[in-house]
Amino acid sequence: MTNQKELKKITPMEQDFAKWYTDVVKNGNLIAYGPTKGSLIFKPNSYGIWELIQENLNKIFKKKGIQNVYLPLLIPESLFNLEKEHIDGFNPELATVTHVGDRELNEKLFIRPTSEVMFADLFKNSINSYNDLPLVYNQWANVVRWEKTTNPFLRSREFLWQEGHSCHETSLEARDLVRVMIKLYAKFMKNYLAIPTIIGKKTHKEKFAGALTTYTVEAMMKDGKALQSGTSHYLAQNFAKAYKISFKNKDNGDSFVYQTSWGVTTRLIGALIMTHGDNRGIIIPPKVAPVQIDVLELFANKDPKVAKVAKTLATDLSRLFRVNLDSTNKNPGFKASNSEIQGVPLRVEVGPRDLANNQVQLIRRDTLEKELVDINLAKKRAIELLDEIQENLYFQAEKRLKERTKHVDNYEDFKQEIANQNFVVAPFCCSDDIEEKIKEETGASTRCVLLKNQVMDKKAPKRCINPGCERTTRRYVVFAKAY
Amino acid sequence: MTNQKELKKITPMEQDFAKWYTDVVKNGNLIAYGPTKGSLIFKPNSYGIWELIQENLNKIFKKKGIQNVYLPLLIPESLFNLEKEHIDGFNPELATVTHVGDRELNEKLFIRPTSEVMFADLFKNSINSYNDLPLVYNQWANVVRWEKTTNPFLRSREFLWQEGHSCHETSLEARDLVRVMIKLYAKFMKNYLAIPTIIGKKTHKEKFAGALTTYTVEAMMKDGKALQSGTSHYLAQNFAKAYKISFKNKDNGDSFVYQTSWGVTTRLIGALIMTHGDNRGIIIPPKVAPVQIDVLELFANKDPKVAKVAKTLATDLSRLFRVNLDSTNKNPGFKASNSEIQGVPLRVEVGPRDLANNQVQLIRRDTLEKELVDINLAKKRAIELLDEIQENLYFQAEKRLKERTKHVDNYEDFKQEIANQNFVVAPFCCSDDIEEKIKEETGASTRCVLLKNQVMDKKAPKRCINPGCERTTRRYVVFAKAY
Repeated sequence: MTNQKELKKITPMEQDFAKWYTDVVKNGNLIAYGPTKGSLIFKPNSYGIWELIQENLNKIFKKKGIQNVYLPLLIPESLFNLEKEHIDGFNPELATVTHVGDRELNEKLFIRPTSEVMFADLFKNSINSYNDLPLVYNQWANVVRWEKTTNPFLRSREFLWQEGHSCHETSLEARDLVRVMIKLYAKFMKNYLAIPTIIGKKTHKEKFAGALTTYTVEAMMKDGKALQSGTSHYLAQNFAKAYKISFKNKDNGDSFVYQTSWGVTTRLIGALIMTHGDNRGIIIPPKVAPVQIDVLELFANKDPKVAKVAKTLATDLSRLFRVNLDSTNKNPGFKASNSEIQGVPLRVEVGPRDLANNQVQLIRRDTLEKELVDINLAKKRAIELLDEIQENLYFQAEKRLKERTKHVDNYEDFKQEIANQNFVVAPFCCSDDIEEKIKEETGASTRCVLLKNQVMDKKAPKRCINPGCERTTRRYVVFAKAY
Repeated sequence: MTNQKELKKITPMEQDFAKWYTDVVKNGNLIAYGPTKGSLIFKPNSYGIWELIQENLNKIFKKKGIQNVYLPLLIPESLFNLEKEHIDGFNPELATVTHVGDRELNEKLFIRPTSEVMFADLFKNSINSYNDLPLVYNQWANVVRWEKTTNPFLRSREFLWQEGHSCHETSLEARDLVRVMIKLYAKFMKNYLAIPTIIGKKTHKEKFAGALTTYTVEAMMKDGKALQSGTSHYLAQNFAKAYKISFKNKDNGDSFVYQTSWGVTTRLIGALIMTHGDNRGIIIPPKVAPVQIDVLELFANKDPKVAKVAKTLATDLSRLFRVNLDSTNKNPGFKASNSEIQGVPLRVEVGPRDLANNQVQLIRRDTLEKELVDINLAKKRAIELLDEIQENLYFQAEKRLKERTKHVDNYEDFKQEIANQNFVVAPFCCSDDIEEKIKEETGASTRCVLLKNQVMDKKAPKRCINPGCERTTRRYVVFAKAY
């Protein structure tokens, strides 16, 4: 519960988006800061969103036959070091256990930044023949990456995630699953979090350390910046060869498996906040809202019927929804603001004046529209409104993504649109060093290479956006400033 | 999936219980060993049990208004050290992060062995007045304790648990919640895990480091040993004073809160295995079985109807139950054994001979009884049988607990009954050093002090069981060899 004195003024997002974000996460019962720098406490409102993400993704995973497992937190140094590119990608960020009590360990243990190497070890010991394939496991876990700069949900030293890992007989099958999973994430974000995304491939510079290909879903925040929201990696045989994950193939020979990994994190909570929030606080899409309906007793001291009706209504609604009843004696304005800042999608106000007409007020969090309805119709109307809110949140976000995604064909326009805080789609055939140069000049990084079926202009190849490049290309890349 | 060559012979429990346990956990798709000593991988069958424990306990917690949060994994040394008794209780077992990459940290960080001190820090910052109380939070998390000897599920260096933490205005309210929670655990274990327990208080020697009182639920394993299965602690103001968790009381003065904490761990999986398992493998109570019904196709190559009927039946059953369809072409004996070793409570065998009479076989995992039923009645019978299995497992365990709990009034009988691998209830008024002596002589430790309402002989106090003690007492203590 946010208490009365904590409810502070929120900096308008137009004035300072970063400050707005910090204000809403601190005041929306979402986070508290832990005792070490960059450490984060997930309070009930944010952990509740994560639980609903977990519950719903789990249902989808289980329908696909994906089984959950849990692997150790600590990875021995020798095991981690077997895959060179992977260790290089993580080395500066690894939290390292060297002692137990006063005793120094024989071997350093790293707190997992991801579990590819632990899964590799498990797979090596579990897989004997093609009969054991495909093997697809998922893990829900905490991971630690010692980031230099931190930002609640977006980049913190410890975060929660799911990481899926699979082994396959053929490259084709593995690549297929990589794409299935990234599409699954995009669909999940659309249907549950009401967040539209762009699916694409990461460039060589931006891909995961140890992967051959990384697919990503990129979302647009309200300030026009991009947020990488989920990834799916084709690991080929990199880990299989380093960790000797082989199997008897159908010809009775030995082959290495082909692997994938894919994950989403508590970063999705940040995505949700920055996609749907407004200057009153966050707005949580009904499907992942820990509280879907707030029932507020107003002026209960003036009419004993208020408390009774509010309770009956809350009980009735709670058969269908996650409901909170605010029966405190705080003032009505505070109660409404408190519900708004916490992003509860629908608020029902029960007060003496409306009750005299056998009515209550329903207030949508997204549009702030109020309507008076007959008490007996409140439940029916709540069902409709929650559906509408879920749809409207997606509609607004999709509209913004479309409007603020600009197609350009020269570097001047490119710079201008990036300066306008838009996503830019541009023909681009160059790689690492040019990406670095563009980032220095404009602040924008490559978010993803569009998949072939997403490219609108399929006819002629176009001149690469890099002014120093003479080539034409059909490779379209999304650039944006990013979190 | 357990593959064909892995299915090994299980050592009979009468011959070597410890070996039986290791055999069943390794072969029941429950665990694999991780790359560091004492580290454990939870495979789908054990993690699936944990997920069902989590799901069901969460429902019960949420009905009580308990909210989930998530706190950081790493605890700074300075924060941990504020509560002397607590740090002394954990010091040798703390895994310590000293470095990030090659850089040494300014302050050591401990991987949480429990989160009392992190919750204390959160509470200190969240609580201002009596209006904020009671505050009851729960966390699902991994914890690390560097145990010298390890045993899968029972004692491992990392385990999963829930830890509840609360702050209250009064001692009375806190003490009340401590008892409510231990009873909730006992009821949960009875209703979901089919495990009967004895509730009691830990002696001074056995209580939690930092608690004033520790309540415990103790279960009896099939070898007669005790397993501490859940605890609930009254922390009084120990942490509140050390961490300065104070609030404005109703008289506008400052008071320290009274606290509780309570938890159950993945140890419950070990409890379940050693309460219900037999020489064919584990037996999972239906309510927490990841797979409740295994549908086996037998001799499907001899009759095309087999595969069709099995699939239709599995689909139909899966509307009510968690169902697995084994349509592999492995031999029938292997398939049955595989289902049994994994503890699936009910097995449906679909084969050509029975199908000719429009029948299938239902086989209970607990009694191994088989019955032929008409296909159209299979679902109805499955509902009944799963209920019966859940009940029978509890009935058997409760019978054993009663039969093997012996009341004694002298030390000779005491030693004899402990040697017989029984629980012993004895009048006992002595403390730490005598408990130590009895443990050295008999191997038995005090499991708990019975609550007043559990003591059968309420009339006369009896002579303390300690031969060197002259006193009489009404304090009845349960002793047993324990895990």
